[in-house]
Amino acid sequence: MQEKNARVLSVQGVKRLPYYLKLLKELQAEGTRYVPAAAIAESLGVYEVQVRKDLAAVSSQPGKPRVGFSVSGLIADIEHFLGYDSANVAALVGVGHLGQALMSYGGFEDYGLDIAAAFDRNSALVGQKIHDCEVFPMERLREICAERKIPIGIITTPADQAQTVCDQLVAAGIKAVWNFAHVRLKVPDGVLVQNEDMAVSFALLSNRLAQSMQEGNK
Amino acid sequence: MQEKNARVLSVQGVKRLPYYLKLLKELQAEGTRYVPAAAIAESLGVYEVQVRKDLAAVSSQPGKPRVGFSVSGLIADIEHFLGYDSANVAALVGVGHLGQALMSYGGFEDYGLDIAAAFDRNSALVGQKIHDCEVFPMERLREICAERKIPIGIITTPADQAQTVCDQLVAAGIKAVWNFAHVRLKVPDGVLVQNEDMAVSFALLSNRLAQSMQEGNK
Repeated sequence: MQEKNARVLSVQGVKRLPYYLKLLKELQAEGTRYVPAAAIAESLGVYEVQVRKDLAAVSSQPGKPRVGFSVSGLIADIEHFLGYDSANVAALVGVGHLGQALMSYGGFEDYGLDIAAAFDRNSALVGQKIHDCEVFPMERLREICAERKIPIGIITTPADQAQTVCDQLVAAGIKAVWNFAHVRLKVPDGVLVQNEDMAVSFALLSNRLAQSMQEGNK
Repeated sequence: MQEKNARVLSVQGVKRLPYYLKLLKELQAEGTRYVPAAAIAESLGVYEVQVRKDLAAVSSQPGKPRVGFSVSGLIADIEHFLGYDSANVAALVGVGHLGQALMSYGGFEDYGLDIAAAFDRNSALVGQKIHDCEVFPMERLREICAERKIPIGIITTPADQAQTVCDQLVAAGIKAVWNFAHVRLKVPDGVLVQNEDMAVSFALLSNRLAQSMQEGNK
């Protein structure tokens, strides 16, 4: 049942799950054991019907009348759905501002992401520790990723180096690439790529703003 | 015609436009005046039919038989569609690693984004210039944004400060908020919010990876 439902949750639905999770963990920390869908909806500014639909897609727990859903049960189900309960170990390549921002981002530990090793070609960075993560030279990328069976590669290099880095990650056995460089990467079948291109994100915002300005001028 | 077509381009289509633009500008720099849809498709790893559909949605220029589309014409049409030809001036709040990564991101100048002022409550940062952009104290946010009529606010603060900063930006007349903090912001009607939440992006990747692992194990 859960398998089947899992496929019907939209990308927008998956994007709401981390917010549910954050709220549920806050409730758990306060000692709350049950939460009604209406309370989740109000806290996050989402319609209650949407909350019920999202939760039904990832959890088979029935809400109890009057008290609502089990907080710990929902946390476990959402974490399982998002794969946070399996090891999400990542290697990061490119320890510039963006790389360091990701390495020091406070939110990831809660979301099952462990940036286990970082790589940079700048020898001044090699050997440094940034938030408990050591920076290694590029020459050791293949060896370390293969040895530790790291499944995720994060690319925060300049665009002109990203494809080379991607090829090295794939050769080292990476299964998924989280790409922050402004370039479309070529990967073999079976390797996932998720692009997090700031220029592309900005294009969406700029287009929405331009359209809303046009609407406003009509 | 363009207005009508503009509404049918999907979010995925808008996301492809910056890649077309990057390629077209590279071609222009090399002196190429015309490009066939097939060449664009091959360079970017997109189906030709998709390229034709995307370009038809944003440009009324007919491709010439054998030679293809005018490079400069497409650049102008895409830039207009994305609003890059109007002033996309932004104020950034929160000059940490992520804020500095955005301020020094090389791609934005090409995309019409000008981060004109940055703000931080850390007095050690105030007065510094990062990539030609001055860092001001929070106390001057409202005055500077209102005076310069800045339409876009970029929030790169920790999550617990983001709503307060957002309220200040809205009070200063901001029309669109680009939010990198892991929190759902509340804004009045008429203000756009685009969330660029790393934890949410990671959730998508983790979920895709978990599903592909399950498929693989079947």
